[in-house]
Amino acid sequence: MSDDARFGLSRQLRLPGPFPLDGGTSLGEIEIAYETHGRLNAAGNNAVLICHALTGDQHVASPHPRTGKPGWWTRMVGPGKPVDPERHLIICANVLGSCMGSTGPASLDPATGTPYAMRFPVITIRDMVRAQAALLDHLGIARLRAVVGGSMGGMQALSWAATYPARVEAAVVIASAARHSAQNIAFHEVGRQAVMADPRWRGGDYYASGDPPTAGLAVARMAAHITYLSEAGLTEKFGRRLQGRPDKPGGAKSFGFDADFQVESYLRHQGLSFTDRFDANSYLYITRALDYFDLAEDHGGRLADAFRGSAARFCLISFDTDWLYPTAESRAIAHALNAAGAAVSCVELSSPFGHDAFLLDAPEMNRIVDGFLRAGE
Amino acid sequence: MSDDARFGLSRQLRLPGPFPLDGGTSLGEIEIAYETHGRLNAAGNNAVLICHALTGDQHVASPHPRTGKPGWWTRMVGPGKPVDPERHLIICANVLGSCMGSTGPASLDPATGTPYAMRFPVITIRDMVRAQAALLDHLGIARLRAVVGGSMGGMQALSWAATYPARVEAAVVIASAARHSAQNIAFHEVGRQAVMADPRWRGGDYYASGDPPTAGLAVARMAAHITYLSEAGLTEKFGRRLQGRPDKPGGAKSFGFDADFQVESYLRHQGLSFTDRFDANSYLYITRALDYFDLAEDHGGRLADAFRGSAARFCLISFDTDWLYPTAESRAIAHALNAAGAAVSCVELSSPFGHDAFLLDAPEMNRIVDGFLRAGE
Repeated sequence: MSDDARFGLSRQLRLPGPFPLDGGTSLGEIEIAYETHGRLNAAGNNAVLICHALTGDQHVASPHPRTGKPGWWTRMVGPGKPVDPERHLIICANVLGSCMGSTGPASLDPATGTPYAMRFPVITIRDMVRAQAALLDHLGIARLRAVVGGSMGGMQALSWAATYPARVEAAVVIASAARHSAQNIAFHEVGRQAVMADPRWRGGDYYASGDPPTAGLAVARMAAHITYLSEAGLTEKFGRRLQGRPDKPGGAKSFGFDADFQVESYLRHQGLSFTDRFDANSYLYITRALDYFDLAEDHGGRLADAFRGSAARFCLISFDTDWLYPTAESRAIAHALNAAGAAVSCVELSSPFGHDAFLLDAPEMNRIVDGFLRAGE
Repeated sequence: MSDDARFGLSRQLRLPGPFPLDGGTSLGEIEIAYETHGRLNAAGNNAVLICHALTGDQHVASPHPRTGKPGWWTRMVGPGKPVDPERHLIICANVLGSCMGSTGPASLDPATGTPYAMRFPVITIRDMVRAQAALLDHLGIARLRAVVGGSMGGMQALSWAATYPARVEAAVVIASAARHSAQNIAFHEVGRQAVMADPRWRGGDYYASGDPPTAGLAVARMAAHITYLSEAGLTEKFGRRLQGRPDKPGGAKSFGFDADFQVESYLRHQGLSFTDRFDANSYLYITRALDYFDLAEDHGGRLADAFRGSAARFCLISFDTDWLYPTAESRAIAHALNAAGAAVSCVELSSPFGHDAFLLDAPEMNRIVDGFLRAGE
């Protein structure tokens, strides 16, 4: 099976439409870019789906084709890691609406032959999950040993359990939430306004210009990046330290508007480098999908009702310095799962690194995920 | 004395230069816009200086000339309030670098006859305080009964006590800090980059165009505004509530990029209305002054040494949901004041409103400030 053309490091699947969406419209033909590691076992019950975050991609354990950097979660996924190609068939797909090979606003609309841009329909987390389910259908995978994700990936894991209760044996939800808070929405709205305020955005039709709204997208990324780090982590990493300069290695205030402080320089770099690898319209659409996410709302306002049909086990992990999706959000999910009679373990880990902790070296997180996955094998 | 031409509701003072600055350069002639309430008593010892925050102004207790809104701190300043024109001569001056009548980047450079724009020198909180001291010299006020401020106003109050120890009897420092943290700097840098990314900014020379960088400034204000509110306050005020529409009074998701959520609409309004009353270059300069602020750094790295010469009493007030200048910052100031042998009371108040709490109805804050000021009278 693993030599099948459906499997391989990086693949792109074309699915004929129509693909109905939560917004009431539908997409025609869509493409899903994905990568797999490992083999489906004879029983067909060792598949693990990894779901990525807002600006992530399918390259969970292989180098990024544009930046050359290692896969974004090689600490969690790989030989000897909790999600292990020796034991699992690992699948990671670029979400619908993104820009790394799956259909999104930068894709050509087959109806017009030009990029969708803002004519792309607004999609939801559940739409992303439905596209992943269509991929699994194509791969002949009826049921997932586990669906695993952090941040927006965790929302997809929750949505998987709620949307396809019979297909999910276990869900690992890390640094995530069952709905976007007012503050989360506010930060995303700042980012969207930054992109849309850039005249190069051109109402979204910037693809032909070769001159995308990088300045606005960089500002959006800078604002978002602050929310990924903790105040304590920023203080530890940068504090008020100044940038060294050729004439002043220890740094000095310029009494100007250069990046005097290391934290300024770091943020500017984060903003600019992001624009090399991400499409501004995709950023608009995916942040919108996040803001729209409210799993309880889809189930009459009661989060527990989202999980009533599920027999999955759940593992929830949060980090004490994550103020984007704080532990209280995980606790609210745990309460709902308890009310629904689901098996759930909920752990708060200590880390100075805020929301980003799930992407960094976190041995405790790995031990918990490893134990949780093995318990079902 | 109160009928003197120096006093009156709104005045503008022209001071001949040179006015030396912390950055090593100096300004020529400067103007300081201020307002006063009440009268200097015969002993000349009832003057209270109110210091305003980043985007504040001299209109502490009189309507804003552009917006028509009441003074920004009428809850604290006015007849029967803790700072009372019946008992005090109240002075509030627009800070140097701002845009409400005091010299700033929008002012005409006397050397060229055109606006300074980015040729305005980078100034510090201490430069602002020195300009206020020059104003007091002009008004014939040798000594302040008290200097009172919240946020950046609190930093000025601290800087007053450190710079002019013999002129300050008491300092009230509310929701403030003795230095800007890495996270504070990061948020300001996002705002500055948003302004500078707007092509209408034109390197700062937008005054003649009549077309200022409002889009960038609005984004900057939106990002900053989130930091003025608490997560809990945003949830209480807006939660995930949708905007009502003519056809859907309870609101509905548009599956588009309109302001679906009330919090989006609120933020957009905050951003846009700000651009009517504030100059983008002033925003750059004042955020820079805030980021440069580190009172310990000016005193060999020991905050206590900033206060060794001061005989002032200090009152520090923080709010439990303020994550911009959290209570830990006030506590650090209190420790330094204790080490310097100064009289200090430090109180944390409970409020759902985050940093903005000091501008809102806070009876406990008023009682504390009232008691503190009366104890010295």
